[in-house]
Amino acid sequence: MDTSAMFNLTYGLFIASVELDGRKNACIINTAIQTTSEPCCMTVTMQKSNLTTEMILKKWNFSISIIAQTCPLEMIKNFGLRSGRECDKFAGVKCEIDNNGNPYFTKDMLAFMSVDVSSVIDLGTHYLFVCKVAEAEKLESGKPMTYADYRTLKAGGSLELTAPQPAKKTYFCSVCHYVYDGDIPFEDLPDDYVCPICGKPKSFFITE
Amino acid sequence: MDTSAMFNLTYGLFIASVELDGRKNACIINTAIQTTSEPCCMTVTMQKSNLTTEMILKKWNFSISIIAQTCPLEMIKNFGLRSGRECDKFAGVKCEIDNNGNPYFTKDMLAFMSVDVSSVIDLGTHYLFVCKVAEAEKLESGKPMTYADYRTLKAGGSLELTAPQPAKKTYFCSVCHYVYDGDIPFEDLPDDYVCPICGKPKSFFITE
Repeated sequence: MDTSAMFNLTYGLFIASVELDGRKNACIINTAIQTTSEPCCMTVTMQKSNLTTEMILKKWNFSISIIAQTCPLEMIKNFGLRSGRECDKFAGVKCEIDNNGNPYFTKDMLAFMSVDVSSVIDLGTHYLFVCKVAEAEKLESGKPMTYADYRTLKAGGSLELTAPQPAKKTYFCSVCHYVYDGDIPFEDLPDDYVCPICGKPKSFFITE
Repeated sequence: MDTSAMFNLTYGLFIASVELDGRKNACIINTAIQTTSEPCCMTVTMQKSNLTTEMILKKWNFSISIIAQTCPLEMIKNFGLRSGRECDKFAGVKCEIDNNGNPYFTKDMLAFMSVDVSSVIDLGTHYLFVCKVAEAEKLESGKPMTYADYRTLKAGGSLELTAPQPAKKTYFCSVCHYVYDGDIPFEDLPDDYVCPICGKPKSFFITE
């Protein structure tokens, strides 16, 4: 078995943050995904030995900030390569506070979510947190940093920040993300048009 | 709550394939991630109503093919926008067969994994499959197609296939993916160097 084949999997890059008993901590994660739309739920996998993980297990809620491609490498290193057991990662870093009292970041971040943990699944070295999204807000516009982008930056490379754009306006289903691809312009479709994948009505489609 | 904030999350694009009682089926998924290195495990989230999901629930193993950026849109549409209940998605499509008897794809794919399902977690509209990786092989070299790439292509856009490359050779820990970033060239580090994150010895570092 060639385990390096696994490195072809795609991941985003995020900061998971929590406040417990007056202490803030956060770490870099790369495994935050949406699992269901109704209700809006996510799963997040985190290493058991992380201080942030231990704090989340006590508090059962945390925030997730989605890192933009514009984020300086120093910000990511601050939260990803140091341990909150040995330093205060929040020293000199600006953050906001969500409804659960957890910190989140707004600069060089595309969005944040506040999540409540519904269940915790033991995966050996890691915990999988199944979470319900309580708050979600867009912040800056731009492209998300992927884990591959991060590795390019770490190796001294640079990112092409002006990424290719769609050639025309795209409509997609807000529930199942189906992208409308018909020859008739979306605006001209009949009112009783429904999503061919999940059956939601035309009004559930949104555009970017 | 602005649920469109969730669209900033990053996903890859994969084909999940299974064979049951002589019948092959497959569908497009975007939520395959590695969860632990030892043992090598993944989680995959799949819609309950999919035929492929139903077949996996009966067989408890399947394969995952990682789609490359070079993959034609027609291949993705064939497996992503049609149901195996209404057509044979494998008609005219070349595939290989893994040790579990499940099909996987080699053309315009970066790698494939054969996985055995360890447990199934009910997430409402979806199941989360916790899987142990039984086989994993690299196929073509290139960049993985992301869900964002797919949406760009669907909208008539094009991808920049010559992506920025790292400026120097990168060494990273095969267990925790820590990227070595020191001033001393990695080759010149002492033999007792260990990964600062997970403690694995120098021999666990690999280069791309």
